[in-house]
Amino acid sequence: MKADDVPTLGDIAPESFRKTGHEMIDWIAEYLTHPERVPVMARTRPGEVRSALPPAPPEAPVPLDTQFRDFREILLPGITHWNHPAFFAYFGITGSMPGILGELLAAALNVNAMLWKTSPAATELEEVVLDWLRQGLGLPGEFTGVLMDTASSAALVAMTTAREILGLDIRQRGLAGRDDLPPLTAYCSQHAHSAVDKAAITLGIGLENLRKIPVDEDYRMLPGALEAAIGDDRAAGRRPFFVLATVGTTSTASVDPVPAIARICRRAGLWLHVDGAYGGMAALLPEKRWALEGAAEADSLVVNPHKWLFTPIDFSAFYTRREEAVRAAFSLVPEFLRTPEQDRVRNFMDYGIPLGRRMRALKLWMVFNSFGMEGLRARLRDHIRLGAWLAGEIDADPAFERMAPTHFSLVCLRWLAPGRPGVPTQGAARDEALNRLNETLLHRLNESGRLFLSHTVLDGRYTLRMAIGNIRTDQAAVEAAWRDIRETAAQLAREEA
Amino acid sequence: MKADDVPTLGDIAPESFRKTGHEMIDWIAEYLTHPERVPVMARTRPGEVRSALPPAPPEAPVPLDTQFRDFREILLPGITHWNHPAFFAYFGITGSMPGILGELLAAALNVNAMLWKTSPAATELEEVVLDWLRQGLGLPGEFTGVLMDTASSAALVAMTTAREILGLDIRQRGLAGRDDLPPLTAYCSQHAHSAVDKAAITLGIGLENLRKIPVDEDYRMLPGALEAAIGDDRAAGRRPFFVLATVGTTSTASVDPVPAIARICRRAGLWLHVDGAYGGMAALLPEKRWALEGAAEADSLVVNPHKWLFTPIDFSAFYTRREEAVRAAFSLVPEFLRTPEQDRVRNFMDYGIPLGRRMRALKLWMVFNSFGMEGLRARLRDHIRLGAWLAGEIDADPAFERMAPTHFSLVCLRWLAPGRPGVPTQGAARDEALNRLNETLLHRLNESGRLFLSHTVLDGRYTLRMAIGNIRTDQAAVEAAWRDIRETAAQLAREEA
Repeated sequence: MKADDVPTLGDIAPESFRKTGHEMIDWIAEYLTHPERVPVMARTRPGEVRSALPPAPPEAPVPLDTQFRDFREILLPGITHWNHPAFFAYFGITGSMPGILGELLAAALNVNAMLWKTSPAATELEEVVLDWLRQGLGLPGEFTGVLMDTASSAALVAMTTAREILGLDIRQRGLAGRDDLPPLTAYCSQHAHSAVDKAAITLGIGLENLRKIPVDEDYRMLPGALEAAIGDDRAAGRRPFFVLATVGTTSTASVDPVPAIARICRRAGLWLHVDGAYGGMAALLPEKRWALEGAAEADSLVVNPHKWLFTPIDFSAFYTRREEAVRAAFSLVPEFLRTPEQDRVRNFMDYGIPLGRRMRALKLWMVFNSFGMEGLRARLRDHIRLGAWLAGEIDADPAFERMAPTHFSLVCLRWLAPGRPGVPTQGAARDEALNRLNETLLHRLNESGRLFLSHTVLDGRYTLRMAIGNIRTDQAAVEAAWRDIRETAAQLAREEA
Repeated sequence: MKADDVPTLGDIAPESFRKTGHEMIDWIAEYLTHPERVPVMARTRPGEVRSALPPAPPEAPVPLDTQFRDFREILLPGITHWNHPAFFAYFGITGSMPGILGELLAAALNVNAMLWKTSPAATELEEVVLDWLRQGLGLPGEFTGVLMDTASSAALVAMTTAREILGLDIRQRGLAGRDDLPPLTAYCSQHAHSAVDKAAITLGIGLENLRKIPVDEDYRMLPGALEAAIGDDRAAGRRPFFVLATVGTTSTASVDPVPAIARICRRAGLWLHVDGAYGGMAALLPEKRWALEGAAEADSLVVNPHKWLFTPIDFSAFYTRREEAVRAAFSLVPEFLRTPEQDRVRNFMDYGIPLGRRMRALKLWMVFNSFGMEGLRARLRDHIRLGAWLAGEIDADPAFERMAPTHFSLVCLRWLAPGRPGVPTQGAARDEALNRLNETLLHRLNESGRLFLSHTVLDGRYTLRMAIGNIRTDQAAVEAAWRDIRETAAQLAREEA
């Protein structure tokens, strides 16, 4: 098969690119206008997509038309649609049309924003857009930003910097085989994201030196317990150095008491990193500014526009008031990357692991411009309103129980299975029975293709998570999902145990 | 200013997306057909782009037309054009039209490929495309792949895994404050990429425990020196654990003797990671298959399709024959991510730092399909031919000196400044004078906007690097660049010292 106008060398023919590019733009517009037409969760069996694709790469070119057809016919049925208005799992990575166009332009320019010089506009747009976001969040001007892929990388960078500024010469001498080092200890709540565990593993801190501080009844870190743990470690000759506080935990979107934690960190001389990947975005709203209260006292902070600011994945904004320390931890400038202007500009490769960095800032620039701050606030506010509405419905329905406070747009619930035979009325046996039933309920809902929820376990109780955050999710979608949950549960109640 | 049809909630109007999307596709087609119309290196002063952008985010929406105009008028002059046929700096990150369309579709689907379940097609396409590439490179079937952003992340993952399989319980217990650990030592050549330094810093190995093994006259690691260094460390009570060999070093594209290094690693029980980010791609050609000779004996390997396979940044393919070890080093499956099928499928979040992962595989899938293996081989072969042509020209011109062997498409050269007054005829003083002159020559060339080279320093000698790898670079572009280099040098020779 001969492809359309593929020259022997160079790129494909521009006419082919234009034709298929236009078709793809039109297809995307149609897909995103009616994402509800596809099942939200793929119903593919393991290996099904793989076996539909050729086992070896094609020798000859395949026409773009054929590729686009294979994309729609082979790949699309295996996609779980994060764009679907009834995608309520995890925290939705909420894209938007302007964000897609930003990624398109970034791929076309295809610059590497490792050095200022390798594309000044990429570096300076990153500075500008991250400063816009900083202003929106109400962070003070001494916080400067760096774009990263995910909040996991941000936690790693924060912890590496915190370890380096201990003055133990770890960058140069390492940690192993030294008799002058105590164990280094880090702290987070029992509900922190596993990103901090990965950082503790990678940095050679060790999981057993990462203290998971208990939480209160609303899943917030107990500052007293943190202070006690730090004191215990000190007394035992260990060296506390890093605390991660979470604004919007993964399980329940709980918010750690950052002001109290910040005071403890300041007194004890520990680095405080605030993981506001999801919840931190809410601080764009004046009435939710409290979410980042105390964050101005932190050493670093991360928020994820790819979680809740309509920016396609990947896009994490890392902020620090100690930019020099971050650079000192990571910078390694080999000869071939020295440039005459290096002392007057930022070279973002010096602030983390990857040397290569694409021009991610374009996406958020187009999102800010396309919606405006007032439009972004209206959308976040609407998601929070939908979460509150759902929380009210759950509270009013005796067949369901809300499992955690609803600060933002994540709602945690479980079904209490009234009328279902064989469910004990109290004690651990009741929770066990409800756990099995809620798990069944979740799988039945997800397999319907009509909606997609995820789950967590809170104090031993299987809990459904319904995260509202998709730009396409409206009142009708939330109402339909809630009806679906109740009806599916009611049907389950009628079945034999 | 009111934007075009921006609704109060939800996404922008599909008609606006279509209209601007089509215009952007057309603009990209035009831009990539005539990238030579723009200066290759941006001539922007530090701060110039930043000061042309609003200091605060817009409150009201900005029409897409206005945004696209600002993109062209404000951002584009600050772009260094990696797509330009005369971009010869670093290793070009060579995009292509099919790769751009793949990124467009990935941004539109906007799935998170963290778990198989969160989009089976994303995980399985990643498996398929990486297996296609594996076959093309001639690696054995026991190598399985994972997509990463950059080779720096791949080096970090490899070194973390190597550290973990020492059986010292580092994941759990960490490295600090233990009296049962010797210093851990890692090895690479003096010409390895700084990625390995970053990994040694981050992992708590320490820069002083990273041995930079000397190289031969062609900048290849000396296996005897490696073996001696390992032996010395063992004798001193240290614990060697990791070797990084490079196929295509950054400075000269030299190729470490991987078969000999692999034998040493196997005998000594060390993890061998092969950094073939640039040079490894050449193994797609039968006549360059030798570039990855011995890599089949390595524990892990990375190649970068974003460097030399026409795939927009970022796209690194990490391969390992020890997938279980990588997963055991990194996997942390919290409750909310447990899925019923998790033992029958790959969940790629378990193989590195980031939890969130976009659907990068689409890009390379479209590149493979659009060019076919024969088309990809033809393009790589052409770049190598151009490199050989240029090498021959340099060798034939007494005013220039070629500074390293030309295996692939990177050519290293310096100007010898014949006729220029004040250049000593020999010794260190000669090199010093030539260094200053070659630096001046480089800056003058780059500031012309006609071509963009980078540099390195080899044995104290300032060296120009000319990397051919852009899909738009042809014989005419290389000839023009060579003419430019000679003419600019000749003019410099005529100036007063």
